[in-house]
Amino acid sequence: MKKFLNSPDTLLEESLDGFAAAHADVVVAGDERKFIRRRKLSRGKVGLVSGGGSGHEPLHAGFVGLGMLDAACPGHVFTSPTPDQIVAAVEAVDQGAGIVLIVKNYEGDVMNFDMAAELTDGRCSTVLTDDDVAVERSTYSTGRRGVAGTLIVEKMVGAAAEAGTPRDALKTLGEAVNRRTRSMGVALTSCTPAAGKPNFELGENEMEMGVGIHGEPGRRRMALASARSIAEEMLGAILGDLAPKRGSEAILFVNGFGATPSIELYLLYREAARIVEAAGLRPVRSLVGSYVTSLDMAGASITVSLLEGEATKLWDAPVHTAALRWGV
Amino acid sequence: MKKFLNSPDTLLEESLDGFAAAHADVVVAGDERKFIRRRKLSRGKVGLVSGGGSGHEPLHAGFVGLGMLDAACPGHVFTSPTPDQIVAAVEAVDQGAGIVLIVKNYEGDVMNFDMAAELTDGRCSTVLTDDDVAVERSTYSTGRRGVAGTLIVEKMVGAAAEAGTPRDALKTLGEAVNRRTRSMGVALTSCTPAAGKPNFELGENEMEMGVGIHGEPGRRRMALASARSIAEEMLGAILGDLAPKRGSEAILFVNGFGATPSIELYLLYREAARIVEAAGLRPVRSLVGSYVTSLDMAGASITVSLLEGEATKLWDAPVHTAALRWGV
Repeated sequence: MKKFLNSPDTLLEESLDGFAAAHADVVVAGDERKFIRRRKLSRGKVGLVSGGGSGHEPLHAGFVGLGMLDAACPGHVFTSPTPDQIVAAVEAVDQGAGIVLIVKNYEGDVMNFDMAAELTDGRCSTVLTDDDVAVERSTYSTGRRGVAGTLIVEKMVGAAAEAGTPRDALKTLGEAVNRRTRSMGVALTSCTPAAGKPNFELGENEMEMGVGIHGEPGRRRMALASARSIAEEMLGAILGDLAPKRGSEAILFVNGFGATPSIELYLLYREAARIVEAAGLRPVRSLVGSYVTSLDMAGASITVSLLEGEATKLWDAPVHTAALRWGV
Repeated sequence: MKKFLNSPDTLLEESLDGFAAAHADVVVAGDERKFIRRRKLSRGKVGLVSGGGSGHEPLHAGFVGLGMLDAACPGHVFTSPTPDQIVAAVEAVDQGAGIVLIVKNYEGDVMNFDMAAELTDGRCSTVLTDDDVAVERSTYSTGRRGVAGTLIVEKMVGAAAEAGTPRDALKTLGEAVNRRTRSMGVALTSCTPAAGKPNFELGENEMEMGVGIHGEPGRRRMALASARSIAEEMLGAILGDLAPKRGSEAILFVNGFGATPSIELYLLYREAARIVEAAGLRPVRSLVGSYVTSLDMAGASITVSLLEGEATKLWDAPVHTAALRWGV
């Protein structure tokens, strides 16, 4: 376990301080680093608040800024933020139009965001993401897990919020985007928290198909396969679930888990693009990079999000965050 | 060695095809994938062409687009592109105002870009980058190596070219930016090409201080140290060399080598920012991410670039490439 680190106890706060300093034009850290929020809030806009365990950077703090989130609450590594953190974020960014909470479907997150919603007197609506088709139940979740597709929900709901959409409609939109967004991941290596041992063990020639973003078990442990056959298995599951009409337009998102270099992610993108095209989809928007990670895990996920209704316009709308930026 | 791969023999071409497909709005691949070029060229603008061995992605193809490079020539992994590739790129992007070649100081690159310059009848000027303060001579270089600071040279010369600056002035600018840009790197692990063994060996508790981006030896092999003391050693060397005036403004760039997650890069940024501020510098611009990589190496480099003259304006100018985008 070799990391850039002073002490495991101070990793999170030091990293957050570095993040806030590097992106001081866009964000500020809240008191006691309970949350990262936008530097400039807009009076009358619905606020978007997300968060979750750390170790998935740039998710979520890297998506705070114009056109995306208003605040993100970082829990300790792979640990939900506390209700206290979430309430503080809601208080800090509510501009009179209420808040939409975007929550990945893990039991701890759901519980703590629900508690924060109760403590803030009806000012919050919740969108739950559960885009991972790998398993129906996992170590930390009942029902499907929320993974990389959460980025797409945050981008589209963020764009709509920026355009003045009211809270109820944002919740409806977020749930619709989540339903047409599906993901699956594979781990080539485990991940190792700063304080401890690898989260799980993988043999020299093994991979975990359908892995979760905390290293939770997926569908099966299997021998390392070619990029092509990995992409085929993941997209078989995704497209089987989405059952898109031929000719549908989609975002194709290949996401690295933290330790996979971009030369490999682009190779995987090529395989994925060929497969979705052969299935009659048109990948008219793409995203390739390490956006929803699992510390230092080598591995990747593939996400397909169908572009229906206003979705393309919402995806293309200006965004200015630490990790996603265009149009501004 | 676990990678997303079909065959080591087809890795590069498949990855380039994926890159060109994912960013088809910005780039196109040349015949036989000799180069990646901008989709839209501007008549009368000086063309910027760079390139080098693959394995450093997103450098250089990820920096092709508005406000940065016109073309990038990818050699095989850690191998210079051929003169034939570079000539093809020059022919493809020359819009009547000549070409500036931006070349990292490695013997193979220098030789092949020089040969291409000779073969194109005086249409090319060359800017050589050698920002790595670690060593004065290395496995593949005489004199200092060109590393992560090359990105900053490409950005600033690219912005000036976009603004209509002529070829001679671009060469002068590029050399000036290179002189005030200094870098140093450290490896926590080796890197492993698809076809082979790790490039070098590092013990369980060792790091290579001053490593090159191909895993070339640096200043010394030493026991893993804290992020703070790593940053102190690297910035001691960088600031000792730059000898900046107190109060100078600078870009502070923390670059991951491929397998280092962003939670660690931001922690390192925090340490670096504190050190440069204590030395009287003002890090008014920042960049944190894996931009100039060494395949799957865990490690990072720190670059300081002094913002003199028009440099801040050139850095802030719009850029639209696969890996860097703002203002558009």
